[in-house]
Amino acid sequence: MKKSINLVLGFHNHQPVGNFDHVIEKAFRNSYGPFFDIMLQHPHVRFAIHNSGPLLEWIVGHHPEYFEKLRTAVRSGQVEVMTGAFYEAILSVIPDSDKIGQIRKLTQYVKKNFGYNAVGMWLAERVWEQHITKAIAEAGVRYVVVDDTHFKYAGLQDAELFGYYITEEQGTIVNVFPISRMLRYAIPFQPVEKTIEYLRSVATEDGRRVLVHADDGEKFGSWPHTYEHVYERGWLRDFLKAIDENSDWIRVLHFSEVLKTVEPVGRIYLPDASYAEMQQWALPARAFVEFEEFERMLKSDGLHSRYEVFVKGGFWRNFLVKYPESNNMHKKMLRLSRWANGERAKGKNVEKALHRIWAAQCNDAYWHGVFGGLYLPNLRFPVYQNLLEAEKELDKKTRRLGIRYEVTDFDRDGREEVLVESPDLNVYFKPDLGGSIFELDVRSISYNLIDVVTRREEGYHRKLRSAQQQSSEAGSVASIHDLVETKEGNLDQYLQYDWYRRYSLLDHFFGPEASIESVSGCSYPELGDFVNQPYDYKINSRAGTMHARLWRNGALRVGSSTHRLRVTKEVTLKKDSSDLMIRYWIKNQEQRPIDVWFGVEFICGLLAGDADDRYYKTRNGRLEAGTLRSRGVIEDANDVSLVDEWLGVQVQLVAPGCSSIWRFPIETVSLSEAGFERIYQGAVVIPNWRVHLVHSWSTAIAYRIRTRRSGSHKSYSGGRKR
Amino acid sequence: MKKSINLVLGFHNHQPVGNFDHVIEKAFRNSYGPFFDIMLQHPHVRFAIHNSGPLLEWIVGHHPEYFEKLRTAVRSGQVEVMTGAFYEAILSVIPDSDKIGQIRKLTQYVKKNFGYNAVGMWLAERVWEQHITKAIAEAGVRYVVVDDTHFKYAGLQDAELFGYYITEEQGTIVNVFPISRMLRYAIPFQPVEKTIEYLRSVATEDGRRVLVHADDGEKFGSWPHTYEHVYERGWLRDFLKAIDENSDWIRVLHFSEVLKTVEPVGRIYLPDASYAEMQQWALPARAFVEFEEFERMLKSDGLHSRYEVFVKGGFWRNFLVKYPESNNMHKKMLRLSRWANGERAKGKNVEKALHRIWAAQCNDAYWHGVFGGLYLPNLRFPVYQNLLEAEKELDKKTRRLGIRYEVTDFDRDGREEVLVESPDLNVYFKPDLGGSIFELDVRSISYNLIDVVTRREEGYHRKLRSAQQQSSEAGSVASIHDLVETKEGNLDQYLQYDWYRRYSLLDHFFGPEASIESVSGCSYPELGDFVNQPYDYKINSRAGTMHARLWRNGALRVGSSTHRLRVTKEVTLKKDSSDLMIRYWIKNQEQRPIDVWFGVEFICGLLAGDADDRYYKTRNGRLEAGTLRSRGVIEDANDVSLVDEWLGVQVQLVAPGCSSIWRFPIETVSLSEAGFERIYQGAVVIPNWRVHLVHSWSTAIAYRIRTRRSGSHKSYSGGRKR
Repeated sequence: MKKSINLVLGFHNHQPVGNFDHVIEKAFRNSYGPFFDIMLQHPHVRFAIHNSGPLLEWIVGHHPEYFEKLRTAVRSGQVEVMTGAFYEAILSVIPDSDKIGQIRKLTQYVKKNFGYNAVGMWLAERVWEQHITKAIAEAGVRYVVVDDTHFKYAGLQDAELFGYYITEEQGTIVNVFPISRMLRYAIPFQPVEKTIEYLRSVATEDGRRVLVHADDGEKFGSWPHTYEHVYERGWLRDFLKAIDENSDWIRVLHFSEVLKTVEPVGRIYLPDASYAEMQQWALPARAFVEFEEFERMLKSDGLHSRYEVFVKGGFWRNFLVKYPESNNMHKKMLRLSRWANGERAKGKNVEKALHRIWAAQCNDAYWHGVFGGLYLPNLRFPVYQNLLEAEKELDKKTRRLGIRYEVTDFDRDGREEVLVESPDLNVYFKPDLGGSIFELDVRSISYNLIDVVTRREEGYHRKLRSAQQQSSEAGSVASIHDLVETKEGNLDQYLQYDWYRRYSLLDHFFGPEASIESVSGCSYPELGDFVNQPYDYKINSRAGTMHARLWRNGALRVGSSTHRLRVTKEVTLKKDSSDLMIRYWIKNQEQRPIDVWFGVEFICGLLAGDADDRYYKTRNGRLEAGTLRSRGVIEDANDVSLVDEWLGVQVQLVAPGCSSIWRFPIETVSLSEAGFERIYQGAVVIPNWRVHLVHSWSTAIAYRIRTRRSGSHKSYSGGRKR
Repeated sequence: MKKSINLVLGFHNHQPVGNFDHVIEKAFRNSYGPFFDIMLQHPHVRFAIHNSGPLLEWIVGHHPEYFEKLRTAVRSGQVEVMTGAFYEAILSVIPDSDKIGQIRKLTQYVKKNFGYNAVGMWLAERVWEQHITKAIAEAGVRYVVVDDTHFKYAGLQDAELFGYYITEEQGTIVNVFPISRMLRYAIPFQPVEKTIEYLRSVATEDGRRVLVHADDGEKFGSWPHTYEHVYERGWLRDFLKAIDENSDWIRVLHFSEVLKTVEPVGRIYLPDASYAEMQQWALPARAFVEFEEFERMLKSDGLHSRYEVFVKGGFWRNFLVKYPESNNMHKKMLRLSRWANGERAKGKNVEKALHRIWAAQCNDAYWHGVFGGLYLPNLRFPVYQNLLEAEKELDKKTRRLGIRYEVTDFDRDGREEVLVESPDLNVYFKPDLGGSIFELDVRSISYNLIDVVTRREEGYHRKLRSAQQQSSEAGSVASIHDLVETKEGNLDQYLQYDWYRRYSLLDHFFGPEASIESVSGCSYPELGDFVNQPYDYKINSRAGTMHARLWRNGALRVGSSTHRLRVTKEVTLKKDSSDLMIRYWIKNQEQRPIDVWFGVEFICGLLAGDADDRYYKTRNGRLEAGTLRSRGVIEDANDVSLVDEWLGVQVQLVAPGCSSIWRFPIETVSLSEAGFERIYQGAVVIPNWRVHLVHSWSTAIAYRIRTRRSGSHKSYSGGRKR
């Protein structure tokens, strides 16, 4: 009897909310478009396609002809369309009602636009936790596709993975297909024959086996060097020809056809998993390195291929721990989702807000592996934007007329945060970390000024450092590019790490050797214990004015002893203003006077460091060479403004009597598809004072935010329209 | 400054629902009782105690003085009482409402009986999945205690585990304490000084570190050799003395005091985990062995201690896959829970049924590691009993007067089962596995006759086999006991594995060499393809009678060719009877006649193989040496009865015209605390016929169930009262 096999082909296309038009256009031209066109020329080769919601919304605006083609291919039966969370959210970390809502949204979209009843689900980043089965099933999903690795972690072996399984949660079930790693690595990177040979080697006489290839559509033209390979050198054409030629023993089926014609292999429960690399990325930096060591040793000992199924990295959710910036977005999202779903439970129509919240759940900005992810300001920007737009929607019912505040554990770290909210601003304080402001939302432009990623060590930085070292030893700077790919030279000099989180309203006491260089490199001598230590606080509210007072009885290191000081700061916010008026009192709690060098740190994101329309100015005018990426000391003025004409916002800081104002950028070094890259995160300004402190000292700082948009405050009139 | 440290001591006591009185009594006298009395003599040593619900219910009946002591110790402030799922359920696999219900039940019990507001939770077997955070938090739990391993799987290292963390699900939070493996291994097994030395080595000047010991109370007297060590040689007395003597730097605190006085170390998300051994046990047998190999190699390569945190076994939930018997209980439980919670949602009072269902969720019967667990009939017995009692409670509303049937995927394997339910019986068919009966509940005694564990290979069997081999080679049978502990000799001869699941109504065609030995050893020649292959089915119901007809067009192997046959069977059940009337038709689908040796297999559990009050009889009388564990061939009668006087049930099989009836026990070999043991699971009876099949052949089998309890059927009058 002739041996035969069932083959299922699935392709997943996605672009994050907030990606640049030109980037998506390029991906469309290089992969999504040509891939689809060529597939349609082979109508016998059935396949499944998943396009995420944000990508579909982009395509319909830019390439509506794709929609028409997809409709036709659905009618002809060649294409099966898959659903998923509309905004490609990591399902396990969003509320259950949002899980279901997001999936139904994409299913409805697919039905409406392509006339297909999608019952298969693409799981974003294949981040699986067993319990999501219930929400998936309730959303109408009948099958989901994950890596074969997931199954191997459960103790199954390759020979048991030629088919699909049934999984269960609280009695609900879905079918789970394992993606063949063999095929995922072979298609399209290996010669076509490799795939055919492999299929032949596993085909059986009963013909019941099922093999699944399912992976990113970007592999077909968008990843480096793949366009030439797949189209110009004709890999895809050859592949489809080979499939056609072997159609007597390779049956190409839809997932949904397999469900109808082939029995499940069995039941299974899958431990939490993603693809193996993702699990390594989710480890803390130190463990990341150790994991790499371990894998290397296993390989050199010849143990890896046999036992790798027992070797597992970390847990996806710990990206929320590894990056507090991710956690901040996540917990803000949960807060708004709870609000919106609560309103909906009361029968109120909050669809608009909900869809904004779902858009903010798009996964890309919440984690980081080898693509930019969390490090990219343009991916975080739409998260806050959507959340703040949702907030405004929800606020419509209970219109903010005054100022309110709430004390709550916003970020779920067990400590209380103070959330002050006015018609114009959300000013969120973190008393336990220096009495800082960790989020400052400008509501009229739906922007969080403190959306910045702190510089911290990544597990892969040591590669950059050792490459630099090797190239120095070799006496050749250029050779660094041979060792690791970087977007620019000498990137290792930017490997500076912050020992505190980059928030605003941080209170420094500098040692005499401090300089703009050492302060910006976070290697200066800090004499105080205020920057990231707990403050007490008290909120007073009266007649439309909110006073947030924060204080700490701390100390300075003076030689080998300490000198006790109390720092008190009070932030005043009026309901009809977008100014923060800040007062400081420093009280000497010892008898002897002391000379201190005090500075208050503020940070602003403002998206781009090098752009023409983002710059520093003082009341004396725009600074020369004053992009937000520049570093400098302002000595001729006691004010500084950060202007972002694209966003339409100007932030002015006035610090009367200060000795100088330091300004410098925070730039991170992270991995991208094209190698290491430096990314501008935000601009720090630190007005500082040299004070001979006898009994006490005080000062005032004005922090004024002006935007071009409407609001109760004076509008900002400079710059171009957005 | 003197270094100091915080120490938290927790002890967890549990006995499964259904454990024997004398076993619990022994555990109480050897550990729970003396441990508690000695602790109370050191009132400065605070500790947390968790007693599971079933144990508390036993204690209050047998040792009420313990309750009085515990109340006193709570009042004095020495003892903190922990809550948990009342019946010590694995939380991740029970419905959310039951998770909450079970925890609240124990919390209320603790409040009522001991006057303590328990906010800490003992997590059964420390089986963690991140999402359970939400249910736990909603049940009022503020902290939970798991292994430090759980944290290490998330990428944390020892130095980061001197304290507690906060974890989150959908915005809800709980605090999680890591149990120190170092202390868990040292207490009480190492000399007291080891623990003190270790504490000293990690104490710090700021005194903020927290170390947790929390583990099974049975370690203190019930585990082998521990009674002498802990009490007679005085380990516990010495330990408490040492704690007292070092109280200037070892602060013994309650968990809840730590929460009030020490800040959390940070946030964390924990991947699904249990203790490391449990995860290995959850692997399929083959992977179990490979995992062991891998660990051994890592140890010999010196990689284990450094990298073991990246090495992980399987997923707890796959015990439900590894053991279909566990799955059957689990899915039956889910079905009844859904029913009960559905009724409750309608405002009906179904508390009694719910508590029965919760009792059936007690974890011990659902898995197997080194204790008996699933293999123990006395642990499975109360699971079915509680579930069937719950069913009767729920049925009260919609009293079963007639017969009903339902086609549903009962066990969530993607295939349909047929559930026929009469006032007296639940007869559950599995068409896809031989058209068998996989569950047969006798409602008057709340017993599932087919509660039997199939014989299958366990990862640890090869140890027994190789030990036997070594001892044979050494020419000494006795030495096997030196290599592995066994409860009896020659256990390896019982290592016989079934290639099909042990259900009833299985249709065999034996090869001529078949014998009672080879059939009972499952090594006989099976010529048909009926035993575990799919049957078609059709259910007819009229006038209080249900006919379940099942048929398969199969084939016999005859030499190198096949001979096509159709087997049809029809089971008839009347609403006022507990008899199954079974008719068989075998149709020859070839021209040529064929001689077949046909047998129908039935199985009965009946709890004990060797007891005097369980035995075989025929209409000629009780069989000599006829315990249920005996093997034999009945040739002088065409009937056989299995009698269980303790349960009060008699199962009679009448097979007119049969050539003989084979009867033999199913016995498994599994690990227990005292080593390998053989366990009687059930008794198989196989009436068989030698048929010269020309066109067709038919026969009838009566399967009559009589019980001592009331019911619409004739009652069984023999035997002692239960």
